[in-house]
Formats: sequence, C-alpha cells, structure tokens
Amino acid sequence: MGVGAKPPAHVVIVGGGFAGLYAARALARADVRITLLDRRNYHEFQPLLYQVATAGLAPGEIAAPIRHVLMSCRQARVLLAQVHGIDLQRQVVRSDAGEFSYDYLLLATGARHSYFGHPEWERFAPGLKSLEDALEIRRRILMAYELAERTSDPQERQALLHFVVVGGGATGVELAGAIAEISHETLRRDFRRIDPARSRVCLVEAGDRLLRAFPRDLSLQAERALRRMGVNLILGTRVDDVTAQGVRLGGEFLPARTILWAAGVEASSLGTEIPAERDRSGRVRVAADLSVPGHPEVFLAGDIALVEGAHGEPLPGIAPVAIQEGILAAENILARARGDKARPFRYHDRGMLATIGRSQAVAKVGRLHLHGFLAWLVWLFVHILYLIGFGNRVAILWRWTLAYLTFERADRLITERQPEPR
Amino acid sequence: MGVGAKPPAHVVIVGGGFAGLYAARALARADVRITLLDRRNYHEFQPLLYQVATAGLAPGEIAAPIRHVLMSCRQARVLLAQVHGIDLQRQVVRSDAGEFSYDYLLLATGARHSYFGHPEWERFAPGLKSLEDALEIRRRILMAYELAERTSDPQERQALLHFVVVGGGATGVELAGAIAEISHETLRRDFRRIDPARSRVCLVEAGDRLLRAFPRDLSLQAERALRRMGVNLILGTRVDDVTAQGVRLGGEFLPARTILWAAGVEASSLGTEIPAERDRSGRVRVAADLSVPGHPEVFLAGDIALVEGAHGEPLPGIAPVAIQEGILAAENILARARGDKARPFRYHDRGMLATIGRSQAVAKVGRLHLHGFLAWLVWLFVHILYLIGFGNRVAILWRWTLAYLTFERADRLITERQPEPR
Repeated sequence: MGVGAKPPAHVVIVGGGFAGLYAARALARADVRITLLDRRNYHEFQPLLYQVATAGLAPGEIAAPIRHVLMSCRQARVLLAQVHGIDLQRQVVRSDAGEFSYDYLLLATGARHSYFGHPEWERFAPGLKSLEDALEIRRRILMAYELAERTSDPQERQALLHFVVVGGGATGVELAGAIAEISHETLRRDFRRIDPARSRVCLVEAGDRLLRAFPRDLSLQAERALRRMGVNLILGTRVDDVTAQGVRLGGEFLPARTILWAAGVEASSLGTEIPAERDRSGRVRVAADLSVPGHPEVFLAGDIALVEGAHGEPLPGIAPVAIQEGILAAENILARARGDKARPFRYHDRGMLATIGRSQAVAKVGRLHLHGFLAWLVWLFVHILYLIGFGNRVAILWRWTLAYLTFERADRLITERQPEPR
Repeated sequence: MGVGAKPPAHVVIVGGGFAGLYAARALARADVRITLLDRRNYHEFQPLLYQVATAGLAPGEIAAPIRHVLMSCRQARVLLAQVHGIDLQRQVVRSDAGEFSYDYLLLATGARHSYFGHPEWERFAPGLKSLEDALEIRRRILMAYELAERTSDPQERQALLHFVVVGGGATGVELAGAIAEISHETLRRDFRRIDPARSRVCLVEAGDRLLRAFPRDLSLQAERALRRMGVNLILGTRVDDVTAQGVRLGGEFLPARTILWAAGVEASSLGTEIPAERDRSGRVRVAADLSVPGHPEVFLAGDIALVEGAHGEPLPGIAPVAIQEGILAAENILARARGDKARPFRYHDRGMLATIGRSQAVAKVGRLHLHGFLAWLVWLFVHILYLIGFGNRVAILWRWTLAYLTFERADRLITERQPEPR
C-alpha cells in the first residue's frame, strides 16, 4: 500500500440480530470500518424467547450486549440508535443518533408479528418477537393465575384459566406446550383455591395441520404429543375476532383472558425505504447476491429479505437462514470492495427443529425424521451449541437440568409494565 | 378437641418481605389460617438489590415467588393485593382484591426511600428499594455509557460519564463500589470513542464518615478501599438541589446525568393507619411485644416498626432485624391465641456487613472487626447462607465465581421502561 491507498470502506449494519451480528463477525478481520446500529443494546437469541415468555429462562440468559459480543472486533463501532430512514442517493442512514454515511449498507432489521389487517388485536393478543414481548407475555400468563386465585366469580375464574395460542408454527407449538407444562406440573401445588392443572390451553391453527414447514409425519407426532400434554388443538379454523373477553372462531366465542399471537409476521417497516418488489408480508425481494437491484452497495439479510430456496419456495424466517445470509452479504461486500464478483446465495438446509415440551420435540435432520426424546436431545444440543459467545451456556445447562428433574421454572416474576405506586 | 372447638384463628400478614415471610414460616405448623397479601408476586432478597442495579445478577436470581416459598405451608393462602386501608374497629383490611377480616394482623410493609421533603428529586435520582427500582437504575447506568459513546459534545460526554451516589450508608457504598468496578474493569474494552475507565464516580455523604452504623475503624477502611477503587468521596456535604443536569452541593454544581439516591428512608404509608406515635421517618412505635398499644391483635415488624435496641437506640432497617421481628411477632400471635403472655422483643445482634467491591468488604462480627478479603468471604458466606429457599444458590455462586475471575457482569441489558415503537 502506498501513500495513495484508499481509506478502508465504511460498512453500516442496521440491526444486531443473527444476520447483522454474523455479518459483523464475518467482516471482523477485513480492512473495513464497521458501524452497527441497533435500537437495543443487546442481541436476542430469538429461538429461546418462548422460554423467557414462559418463565423458564431469565432475559439475561438469552441476550448478550452487542458491543460485548463484538468487543474483540476493534474496527467495529456499536451504537444505540433507532434508524428511521435511508437516503440511497446520498448513501446516508438517518437515525435518532444523527446521520451515518456508508460505502456499503447491510439492512437486517428483521420482522415483527402482524395481525392480518387487525392491528387493534395486538393489545389483547401480544406476539413474541422481542425480549420485551416475552416479558409482557410472562406477566400476562402469571397474572392470570394470580387473578384466578383471588376472584370469587367462577365464570371469571374459568376465563382466566383459559389460554389461547393463535398460530400452529414452531412458536405457537412451543408456547402451547410450555403453558401446558406450567399448568400441569410447575404450578400444581402453588395455589389453594384454583387447581392450575385444570386450566385449558387451546392452540388454534388456520391450516389443517401444525408445523406446516415440517414433513407431515412430524406434524402428526407433534399433534399427538401436544394432545397427550392436554392441549386442545383447533385446526382448520380461522380467528374472526379478538377482544379483551376472548376470541371468536368460526361463529363460536371462546372466553379467555390470555391470548397469545404466533400467527403472522411482517417485515420491518424500513423495507419500504428500498425501491424493490415486496411480498404480502413486506419482505423485500433482493438479487441473487442479496443486494438491492440497481444498488450494488446495499444488501439485505434475515427476515426483512425475501430469498428463494432451490425449488423457488421463499426461505423461512429462522435463525440458520439469517446467519447464512448475513455471512454471505458480508463476503459479497468484501468482494465488491475488492472489485471482485459477488456470489449468489445458496441455503444449506441442515434441518429444522421444534420443541414441544420437556423431553419432547420434532426434528428433521437431512433425511432423518426424529421425534420424542431423541429429537429433544438434538434440539438441546443444537441450542447449546448456538449459544456460543453468550457465555451463559453453563448456567442455562444447569437450569435446564434442574428444570428437567424438578419441573421448576425459576423466573416466575411479574415485573414489567406494572405502574409503580409511589 | 370436641365438637365445640373454636375454628382456627385467621392471621392476615400484609407484606412478603423478610418480616412477613419469616412470620408466615413461623406460623406454618400452628393451628391457624394464614392469608399473606403483597402487591408483588415475589419476595425480594433486598441485600442484593444493588447487584441487580449494577448488572451483576439477574432479577430472578434474587427474587422468588412468594407462593412458591410458602408452597409446603398448606394453611397459608398467598394473594396478590394492594392494601390501601385498615379498619382496626371492624378488624378488616381493605385492598384492591376486596376486604379481608382478621383475628390477628401483622403489618410488615417496609419502607421506601425519602427525599427530605423534595419528592421532585426522585425523577432525577431514583432510589433502590425494589426490583423495579433496580432495573431502572441498571437502565440509567448502562444508558449513560451508550449515550456517551454516541455524543460528539465533549461536555455532554463528561456529564454522562459522571455518576453521583447520594448517601454513604451500606447501599451507597455498595452502589459506588460496583459502578467503579463496572467502569474500570467490566466495560473497559467495550467502547471505541469513550474510555469507561475515565468515568467519575462520586459518593456524597452529609455526615463526616461513611457507614455511620459501623465502628469508626471500619468506616475508615471502607473509605480507603473506595478511594483505591477511584471513587471520589465528598463527606460532610449536604445535597442542596437535584436537577436533570446534576446536583448542587454546598454552592458548587456538579454536572452529572446519573444520580442515585441512597440517603433516606420513609416507612410505608400504611403506618399512618395505626393510631400510635411515629418518628420522623414515619416508623410506628410499637409496644415491647411488637403489638400496637391498645390493639393486642395487631403487630408490626420490619422497616415499618420503630423498635429500640438494648441501649435505647432505634434498630436499623436491615434484614436480620426484620427476620427476628417477624418471627417474634408470629410467636406472640400464637401466644395470644392460646391465652398466654406475649414476649418482649430482644435483638440478637450477630454483626453487620457491607461489601465494597470484588473481594472487598467490612464486617463486624461480635467484637471482631474485619475488612478486606476476609470480610468479603464472610459477606459471601452469609449471603449464600441466607439465600436458602431461593433455589438459586448454585447459579449465583457460579456467576460470582465467573465474575470474580473475569470481572464480567452478565446481565447488562437495557430493557425496562423503554417505549416500544410499534
């Protein structure tokens, strides 16, 4: 390099989820400056959010400060900032912490849940996409038992002990299974008036089977396992209305105080800043190399991007997809910076996992279909493996061992969003 | 017992802190019905709140669901209820969960921090009395570093990296020590623009020495240890004003964005429902047997009660006092129920402890004055011992071992009280 060497390119990454974080790591040893912006100071391990929502793990056990994860990456700057706009012409990102100009931009702001045109349902049926969502769901579930214990109205008590989960994908299955476990095992002896074991957990799915992304035989195994745990499955049924009193399903009204939403997702609204085609759920269609058509310096990765698999099917919004996209986007940024050609994205499908409860899961690993205890061991192993860098693996393993042996869930605190009387 | 046997007496306990919980346990094997009311579903281990406030422990590690702690006590009912009044004539407690009539009442609702007639200071200088307080303080401390990293104004940056703790009692000493440790060790390598090690921690105390409740030599040891950790001690100085910009101390204005209050306490406002003498901080003077003069069926224990020690000095608001009072109140309730005489309270002083930082503490055990590492080991041992019943001791020990070896604080999440953009 001579005196005339170019200054290193500036890569701005928006979002510290799986895609953003793995991209930053993939850039770590290259000659670039990195600025990672996120509106939270932590990265969430989303696959375990449901464990926080059901009081099995503490928030800190599935989240890590982003700047700490990237501590050893000296050329990466991490800033707490809410990005609200992108100027593709001036190559500038606008945020509440000021403007950031970029040579390359990676947009990885993920997705939130969507209510199919009924945003008014959110108040009554929170979704599970962030740690704050998880704490709110935890508060509602625990509060329902507390209020049921203290009410003297039998109808009210019944509605309080009725939990409805909408959406039969992995999150819905995990939530329903965990709530059934809490009711039938964890809380069994905690109350005096009510019997938590008599609470009712319903899982509502519009399609004709759970876990549509999985092979049919595994869907049936999951359904069987949930039924054995006492979960009522309501398949082939659409939700017509959600109110503070319950849900209406195909003409019937189910009174229930706790309704959880795991039915639809919607890509981050920053996608609307990108002049490209978007699908129904707002995901932006990117070029094969994950860049934006007409803007080779802008890349998208994770749940905000619409990327198709080998058979033309859109790839699901799961961690392995986001991780692989993040890494390829980083590599393509480096290729462009060197003047090389960018590579197209190809998803390496290593399998799918969904856990149902203590020692129950379904897994597709290559061509292998697993269920029951063995699938659960695979699930456990994979999640412990992925928690590398969280530094909490031993603590989580310890807690899971305890929970497995005792059915105990240690984090049963009703803390957030309670007005503090002073 | 014949057909004419009296039904068991109904004991209502208000407050699930140390006093209330130990009272309930002391009543566990007796022939009484117990109703424990608390506005939270969990018991907090208050001596470790500062660890949550400084991201060293997770909320769930120092809190346990009250109904779970009392699970094996079959005749105890635990209800989530905010008590707002007491009718001593009708023997009824009024709450948002309805009225509860009692044969015996134990009021153990504790204390909150007080601002010496300046309630408007609370917004700028939160105190540390509850888990929610601790999460708010944690949020402010971590947020200060984040905002300092992203600002380009050097004066603003300085104010953001200036932490002022008001009050040199045990809580103030613990907070100041922990913040110094975070700045100088934990966060040292996390930031790029700022150097957390250059942040300034001030501990302000109106008296002429820290830890007034301790013998003078231990106060001096604590002062020496804090100075060695880089804490600025400002002794003999009163706070004149607290604003969003900083604190005014004896004519001088210290710009600081993070101000923490550990200076004064005020007994729970339920004390005003009791027709008895109260001291300046609202504590209710009880009879020697902890009952209310003129109301032998009503007892007070913990921080709400004004009880004097062997030399006429008011006993401090610490866990051992609350625990011993709670147990004696329970025993006296049983004595009264049997028609026996109640016993006067006598405090068994087993010592005092305050921790200053990693491997630094001061301890008074009987006539022994300890400081440094040995005192810290005593502190560790006592706290681990008291965490019996929390089921988290192994997890906490593990975390502390890790923290001791690595200076790491795992729970550095900015979660609560952030408006969620939707």
